[in-house]
Amino acid sequence: MSDDNYTKVLLDESEMPTQWYNIVPDLPEPPPPALHPGTHEPAGPEDFAPLFPMALIMQEVSQDRYIDIPGEVLDVFRLWRPSPLFRARRLEKLLDTPAKIFYKYEGVSPAGSHKPNTAVPQAYYNHMEGITKLTTETGAGQWGSSLAFATAQFGMECEVWQVAASYRAKPHRKTMMETWGATVHPSPSEVTEFGRSLLADNPDHPGSLGIAISEAVAEAVADPSVRYALGSVLNHVLMHQTIIGEEALIQLAKVGETPDVLVGCTGGGSNFGGLSFPFLREKMAGNMNPTIRCVEPAACPSLTKGEYRYDFGDTAGMTPLMKMHTLGHDFVPDEIHAGGLRYHGMAPLVSHIYELGLVEAISIPQIECFESAIKFARTEGIVPAPEPTHAIAAAIREALHAKETGEETVILTALCGHGHFDMAAYESYFGGSMVNYDLSDATLAAAMETVPVVNG
Amino acid sequence: MSDDNYTKVLLDESEMPTQWYNIVPDLPEPPPPALHPGTHEPAGPEDFAPLFPMALIMQEVSQDRYIDIPGEVLDVFRLWRPSPLFRARRLEKLLDTPAKIFYKYEGVSPAGSHKPNTAVPQAYYNHMEGITKLTTETGAGQWGSSLAFATAQFGMECEVWQVAASYRAKPHRKTMMETWGATVHPSPSEVTEFGRSLLADNPDHPGSLGIAISEAVAEAVADPSVRYALGSVLNHVLMHQTIIGEEALIQLAKVGETPDVLVGCTGGGSNFGGLSFPFLREKMAGNMNPTIRCVEPAACPSLTKGEYRYDFGDTAGMTPLMKMHTLGHDFVPDEIHAGGLRYHGMAPLVSHIYELGLVEAISIPQIECFESAIKFARTEGIVPAPEPTHAIAAAIREALHAKETGEETVILTALCGHGHFDMAAYESYFGGSMVNYDLSDATLAAAMETVPVVNG
Repeated sequence: MSDDNYTKVLLDESEMPTQWYNIVPDLPEPPPPALHPGTHEPAGPEDFAPLFPMALIMQEVSQDRYIDIPGEVLDVFRLWRPSPLFRARRLEKLLDTPAKIFYKYEGVSPAGSHKPNTAVPQAYYNHMEGITKLTTETGAGQWGSSLAFATAQFGMECEVWQVAASYRAKPHRKTMMETWGATVHPSPSEVTEFGRSLLADNPDHPGSLGIAISEAVAEAVADPSVRYALGSVLNHVLMHQTIIGEEALIQLAKVGETPDVLVGCTGGGSNFGGLSFPFLREKMAGNMNPTIRCVEPAACPSLTKGEYRYDFGDTAGMTPLMKMHTLGHDFVPDEIHAGGLRYHGMAPLVSHIYELGLVEAISIPQIECFESAIKFARTEGIVPAPEPTHAIAAAIREALHAKETGEETVILTALCGHGHFDMAAYESYFGGSMVNYDLSDATLAAAMETVPVVNG
Repeated sequence: MSDDNYTKVLLDESEMPTQWYNIVPDLPEPPPPALHPGTHEPAGPEDFAPLFPMALIMQEVSQDRYIDIPGEVLDVFRLWRPSPLFRARRLEKLLDTPAKIFYKYEGVSPAGSHKPNTAVPQAYYNHMEGITKLTTETGAGQWGSSLAFATAQFGMECEVWQVAASYRAKPHRKTMMETWGATVHPSPSEVTEFGRSLLADNPDHPGSLGIAISEAVAEAVADPSVRYALGSVLNHVLMHQTIIGEEALIQLAKVGETPDVLVGCTGGGSNFGGLSFPFLREKMAGNMNPTIRCVEPAACPSLTKGEYRYDFGDTAGMTPLMKMHTLGHDFVPDEIHAGGLRYHGMAPLVSHIYELGLVEAISIPQIECFESAIKFARTEGIVPAPEPTHAIAAAIREALHAKETGEETVILTALCGHGHFDMAAYESYFGGSMVNYDLSDATLAAAMETVPVVNG
């Protein structure tokens, strides 16, 4: 940098990482395998073949530390990557803290979040195996938008089942998906047998993420030229997101900084894994020693309150069983605005790493998150999506702690998306109708009763 | 650039221009002065003093070619500037054209458009003169958002009158302004006498930009610690936007390109002036010879169908008279989605330069603009705001012309904002309810009848 007073640390396109980092071979213990839902035996590639292309299944179980990012994927990434790393100088000043706050901003992608980092390679690998259409579900709309954008880049079709309540409340996300060429159905839909059966009972059915997954999966397995795509939780998805952390490592090195604390919001785990895994590699190698901390909503605290057990990834119980921190697969979180964090489980890889004691976890209630987001927006300009308000709240806690101790703590976080499609959440905050949900022990105990008992 | 296959041309913060360019002293003839609305004599600085701080009034009439950008303004600009210049390689491929299409993207600003480029210095100069609050009007919401963001950076208050119809139809823009700390009123409002009188007649009054200006101005002139801010049309606003063109000049030079054609959308003229004036300087100096072309909506074609006459800047006839291309100050354009281009007049400076034959102008109907935007979004990723769809449509026309002639035409345009708050426009396009409005001669003749007759 030619200027010590920098606000952003940018990388040239030629400095963009060309490999993803797979943390699995570096872990002191291998993560437990997924199990077949019927036999409870370890699931093999053939169990995933109707849903995913073989290239992604091989990445899911890969023992290679690094996997090359295909050139055609890098070409699409150049539309917004490398993403900027910001030093939050104006927020630091407001907080009057000696801490240095850095945030990696992923809202520069066309869809407005980190999700295209995996949507693009998923579309690419399917395209290379002759798949002409992808199906998926979407709740808040971030993932559906990202896959719609990604499939457009490879001339593929995209069919999205959007949870009916969200479809009706957020028509703009649907229109955005259509702008990129996707077909969007409210779920439950008339398209699938399952959807029709639910609509027959209740024509105004609000839908759920579990139902939408079931419809998207049913449509994919019915046609050999169609596959399904998932936006978080799985190993290969987290690996695709490691480009975030790899870039941040280069960017911090350019300004001579090393993080003391890294905080990231966790829903399914892909944003957190993407930012933190490359830093965890450096920590395990003894090159730095940051505290690495997951931040989850108090209403959906899978790491801090859930149990580490085998459970289904979906509500309907159709997926393989994964060992993870879970609140129970039919647990329905309260209606917090951070829709992307309302998942009953946690990525098996993040869960495993947490069990190994390599990362910490805290939960933060909704109102503190939005209070922090307002401080952030009024200083740094960007209006954050509800999900990363959790990371911002945690970063502000750290910065205020540094103010007490007088330490020049270097804090790193990821601002994984902007809030342009989430202004209703801010309206609820300003209108005074926002509430703090907290998961009660009784609710949790009831939800955990449905988790299957698996030996071992 | 270390890579000939670049997609973006980025500049380091240290390469950001530190001066604005004032084109006035370089023109072969000086632009005609503004006139006092009562006496029809040239208006002096004192006529503008109740509305604007002296620093901006002095910029409005400055004969200096370059004016330094204050350091505190540059510090805020670093939150998103320098903005990227993109080579639209994926769009070029879709069009199968030998042309090279470059677009300067201003949607990276917190408010999502080029408007903060002038909102920030306007807030700064007011702040430096002891002003504690700014008032303004907003239609679609882009300008109000930008001023809300800018005033937050200097600890000032901001009060915005949003046209009531827009206030009710676009609550998210209002919430965004509140997120940055602004107070937002629907206009007509109960706050001003004028507003109350209109509401007494019609409690559901939809409002208009002219009414909202009247309310914002009335509130500003009533309090010596309050001033008014305008987001386009005036000389100093266009000058603030020249940072766009200055950056683009540096960026194109980095990749060894010179534009053959420059197209920019024109509403009030600030986006067009900001991109084109530095290139016009180079053209007048004989350093390059691009065709420079304004693109306006067929529904509001002030340059291509309006008359070059003295007219009011606002609907109510409160402002000084400005010599400009006008459709008549009480002309109400059809409800095209590009709200930022629905202005009856054109910046006096752009009008003057057009009269001098230094730039060309065309108009394009709405549906061609959205067809072009869909092509753009599906290749380049970014979903454009309705205003720059006009520039994109013009760029695509040029690229297809180049395909016919086989020429490697270098096309430059500005993508002045993203469409995240304008998805209803795309919904109307996909839903088949979008129509092409065209200004009829009879409507124009009727609107022109209200333009005052001024000698000279």
